[in-house]
Amino acid sequence: MTQVLDLVGIFVFALSGALVGVRRRLDVVGMAVLASVTALGGGILRDLILNVRPAAFFSVGYVVVPLAATVIVFFWHPHVQRVMPVVNVFDAAGLGLFCAVGTEKALVAGLSPLHSVLLGVTTAVGGGVLRDMLSGQIPVLLYDRQFYAVPAMLGSAVMAVLYVLDLHGWTATLAAAVLAFGLRIAAVRFRLRAPLARGVTAPD
Amino acid sequence: MTQVLDLVGIFVFALSGALVGVRRRLDVVGMAVLASVTALGGGILRDLILNVRPAAFFSVGYVVVPLAATVIVFFWHPHVQRVMPVVNVFDAAGLGLFCAVGTEKALVAGLSPLHSVLLGVTTAVGGGVLRDMLSGQIPVLLYDRQFYAVPAMLGSAVMAVLYVLDLHGWTATLAAAVLAFGLRIAAVRFRLRAPLARGVTAPD
Amino acid sequence: MTQVLDLVGIFVFALSGALVGVRRRLDVVGMAVLASVTALGGGILRDLILNVRPAAFFSVGYVVVPLAATVIVFFWHPHVQRVMPVVNVFDAAGLGLFCAVGTEKALVAGLSPLHSVLLGVTTAVGGGVLRDMLSGQIPVLLYDRQFYAVPAMLGSAVMAVLYVLDLHGWTATLAAAVLAFGLRIAAVRFRLRAPLARGVTAPD
Repeated sequence: MTQVLDLVGIFVFALSGALVGVRRRLDVVGMAVLASVTALGGGILRDLILNVRPAAFFSVGYVVVPLAATVIVFFWHPHVQRVMPVVNVFDAAGLGLFCAVGTEKALVAGLSPLHSVLLGVTTAVGGGVLRDMLSGQIPVLLYDRQFYAVPAMLGSAVMAVLYVLDLHGWTATLAAAVLAFGLRIAAVRFRLRAPLARGVTAPD
Repeated sequence: MTQVLDLVGIFVFALSGALVGVRRRLDVVGMAVLASVTALGGGILRDLILNVRPAAFFSVGYVVVPLAATVIVFFWHPHVQRVMPVVNVFDAAGLGLFCAVGTEKALVAGLSPLHSVLLGVTTAVGGGVLRDMLSGQIPVLLYDRQFYAVPAMLGSAVMAVLYVLDLHGWTATLAAAVLAFGLRIAAVRFRLRAPLARGVTAPD
Repeated sequence: MTQVLDLVGIFVFALSGALVGVRRRLDVVGMAVLASVTALGGGILRDLILNVRPAAFFSVGYVVVPLAATVIVFFWHPHVQRVMPVVNVFDAAGLGLFCAVGTEKALVAGLSPLHSVLLGVTTAVGGGVLRDMLSGQIPVLLYDRQFYAVPAMLGSAVMAVLYVLDLHGWTATLAAAVLAFGLRIAAVRFRLRAPLARGVTAPD
């Protein structure tokens, strides 16, 4: 169950990476690199910090799914663009799942709740940040004022609290993931905006 | 003692990161990311290379201090800008301390003096390089011809020599840090400039 | 034998990094950083993922050779530019060697053939990607439609097949390296071009 959700998250993140590749007119190699980095980058960062071999280098699905997403975007990107609202919903689901799973792995590995939350957020947003760095842009996360990291942080925090209360298992993980997902959807729906430093006006 | 100095270094590096965030009109999330990456990035790189879990994911101070710097810059950045000359002096102190501590950790972990110097310099400059990469600029370190890496290298070299001579302890670390600090201040004071390749003229 | 080839690969990759530094008018520090990162970045990524201490932090040659390349480019870059066609041939040799050695190290460390190929390609192209990210450009690998990653992938795949067939040793490594080298040279010679996503036209 969690595994299927995990691969769905990988797939959707990979779609977003491959689409950035199309938009920047990269070739098929660039698309595959962006798809893989977006989907796997956060988890690889997490595992490097936990000092274990990255899961992406053990699972077959983690290699194949981003390549499948690349092929789909390569041939049918106008259609994928058209269903982007749906993709965005799945992206929010991936965000929720990745922050919950990342936080749990960190807690199991013995990190404190505080640091587990930090690592959960890193897992959830790391791939997107690397995608933007590779495609020559300031990471969207840093400036677009949408709440993306904050829902991940709250989901991670709930995961950490449940874990400390000894409420383990996939139901706890799913609860935290659903919370982050809901918050992300709500933030988009109600156009919540992260503040700029006092006196700073938004660019344009 | 070293711990307090360490947190001061973290704080000052975080201030510089958050200020770059303001200058680039990032939102509060972007400011916090830049502050944390600037302050912790070099040490995280160092620990990844030494194949140990990054200290930033164990210490509470390492998480809280960058966030505190973000809050200060968020509300009072014009004031922080005004005291930038002071911040730059502290930045030089952070540079000195980070290169000395980084070199020492590498030596203790069994690296050769040569490689310990390399890792010490990486610790000192890595955070700033990551900050600039994240904010969409060529790292200042690579082009601005100010002596920033060179003082760190000399401080690291002195640290390594002292260590090989069996002069351990915080006095040795502090001596190396003060040397790098002094060289950095002197480089700024006397406007020393790193050379460009033969026949290359400076941009503008 | 392999060691000499390895250092030749390091040297040539470092030349290319230092030359990018000249072209972007970086100072000598920037040149040295780009040279080192280009030459060592792929191998460091590989070793981090394999969860071992990066070889670059144990070998003296790995530190000295990039600095030597920096000095040469610093004083004689017009001459180095003039012999670039030769340098490009060596770069193809470095590509071949790095993908073969990287794949082999991954296989020895217990990764599956599929993941070993992925890591071999990462070893071969990682340094160049980091070089471009540091110098403020979209990595050439992602958009220039030249076959660079694909020869590395095929060389890595041959290495993996030979290894699975129990054909170890430096002859196998060399065979895979020569194959990737030949494919890369052929791709340049016959101007093979990686495709763009359907309906996308090349920039300019």
